[in-house]
Amino acid sequence: MFFTLKWEANKLTLLDQTKLPASLEYLEIISVAALIDAIKKLAVRGAPALGAAGAYGVAIALLEQKKENWNKAQLLEKIDEIRNARPTAVNLAWGVDQVAPLIDEGFEKVLAKANSIAEADSKANRQMAKLAADWIEKQVSKRPIRALTHCNTGTLATTDWGTALGVIRELFNRKVLSEVFADETRPLLQGARLTAWELSQYEIPHYVLADGAAASTIARGEVDVVLIGADRIAANGDSANKIGSYPLALAAKRAGIPFLVIAPESTIDRNCPSGAQIEIEMRNENEVLELNGIRIAPKASRGYNPAFDVTPHDLISAVVSENQVYEGAKII
Amino acid sequence: MFFTLKWEANKLTLLDQTKLPASLEYLEIISVAALIDAIKKLAVRGAPALGAAGAYGVAIALLEQKKENWNKAQLLEKIDEIRNARPTAVNLAWGVDQVAPLIDEGFEKVLAKANSIAEADSKANRQMAKLAADWIEKQVSKRPIRALTHCNTGTLATTDWGTALGVIRELFNRKVLSEVFADETRPLLQGARLTAWELSQYEIPHYVLADGAAASTIARGEVDVVLIGADRIAANGDSANKIGSYPLALAAKRAGIPFLVIAPESTIDRNCPSGAQIEIEMRNENEVLELNGIRIAPKASRGYNPAFDVTPHDLISAVVSENQVYEGAKII
Repeated sequence: MFFTLKWEANKLTLLDQTKLPASLEYLEIISVAALIDAIKKLAVRGAPALGAAGAYGVAIALLEQKKENWNKAQLLEKIDEIRNARPTAVNLAWGVDQVAPLIDEGFEKVLAKANSIAEADSKANRQMAKLAADWIEKQVSKRPIRALTHCNTGTLATTDWGTALGVIRELFNRKVLSEVFADETRPLLQGARLTAWELSQYEIPHYVLADGAAASTIARGEVDVVLIGADRIAANGDSANKIGSYPLALAAKRAGIPFLVIAPESTIDRNCPSGAQIEIEMRNENEVLELNGIRIAPKASRGYNPAFDVTPHDLISAVVSENQVYEGAKII
Repeated sequence: MFFTLKWEANKLTLLDQTKLPASLEYLEIISVAALIDAIKKLAVRGAPALGAAGAYGVAIALLEQKKENWNKAQLLEKIDEIRNARPTAVNLAWGVDQVAPLIDEGFEKVLAKANSIAEADSKANRQMAKLAADWIEKQVSKRPIRALTHCNTGTLATTDWGTALGVIRELFNRKVLSEVFADETRPLLQGARLTAWELSQYEIPHYVLADGAAASTIARGEVDVVLIGADRIAANGDSANKIGSYPLALAAKRAGIPFLVIAPESTIDRNCPSGAQIEIEMRNENEVLELNGIRIAPKASRGYNPAFDVTPHDLISAVVSENQVYEGAKII
């Protein structure tokens, strides 16, 4: 049907997510600069997909080293640039760090490791979907279940099945879920563009809504469970995710419905004690001031554009990874 | 500089707010149908401005009756259509109801009453700005004060100075306020288009931000007070306002900063016991699915588009009208 990223014939092919849903186009990446550009403009995004992209990035750097005659210092510098292309998602750095120690063992070893990371992510997707769907079937009594999600956490955010959206697919396949509320997710509209597109592909009934409409939709009793992904989870369970996640957790808490964070183990940063230590990426103000390249706000206005927010652990019912359900977001 | 609405030469001139900030255009309204169209497409919006528009609407209906030879039943039907053009804002119906009983006394009486409503709103604006600014100066110790607001509650929403944005202007004039965070307010972007435009006109420093970014900006301690308007306030203090207001109240409560609702007495509906009885206007799904006429979401996706939400009174620090500060939103 479509794929998010694939290594073939010495290049990394990425679905260009900036073009969805209007058109399905792929980018063929054969240089570090092109990969970093794709990461920065969010042609590839989503924590798990960034992990795989980071790992394959090391393979790309090795091939480019040969072509460009970089010395080792130059190679390491390029690898570091990939690692730091986006600051908040721990998985990008994690993917690079898994593979970078193998560079002296040669390209084939590096590629094999990158492939194994992508395969492991794919397997983890299915496992966390099963664990979380089991948990929800037990904890949520209402049938059919209506879920609300934010940003995109499906195939497009991972190498295979998805994290939070993977759980939604699993619940739908189990015939216990009737519909999904998909926050549009301003400023870049990953919900309206990507999640709605995926849900359309899977023929799962869904509504797109303004981000500000989610809290009251929850308050009116129209949602039974909120599911999001994560870009970094601190040791105390505080979870960084796409801007606009935190108010959903506040609303879920007040309404007394579960709020779940679904993410692979690689998203958990045990070296980061709490959300206070998570660096929040500030993106270009024009993402807010413009829409589809058209200026919305007056010329004199400035924009304020944090890409992520941090949901404190006390608002999270559970973090679910491929290994286990962390009840109450208790990681350690 | 500009005006929101004005009666002159037997017509109602309205600033067409759908065109801002790109261009400053006025609509000349001489028929009930044109007025209803302007109200429905939000060329004129904001609870107090709708109150005045409703009152002038009765004057328009009387003039049109003469031209079109309507009988009394037809006239009353037209007046009722104006009254019901939007369901959530109590002020529209209130404005109509203030003036409609005078129709048998002739056009001049009706127009005089409509003018007096507009003038009273203007005076009320200044009074509530003073009351609320006094309250904030006393309750907020931090200087300079940084305020966050939602939707548009300025001159464009009223006949003169504004409600919540009027308080912000007052604080800025008193030299105690440094900057404003203006939620963009999806789907119709009244914050990015209208509030940012007004703030630019007044040279008040401001940032436009995605609605989903407000809660975490509050949580990080970057905001000292949240101010919104209201479209209907129930007898128990529950307040209906533009979709996306309720999550701000949740965030303000958790952060321990004041959350104020600024609205004229005419917005308080003492016949409505609580928020549960407030009808929420559902608007066309295309407002969410499209932007500037360009489809964002996939064709198969549906949109969910409530125009308002209700903030429960326990999350409101105070409701401020032209008459008094209702501490804890205790109206009765």
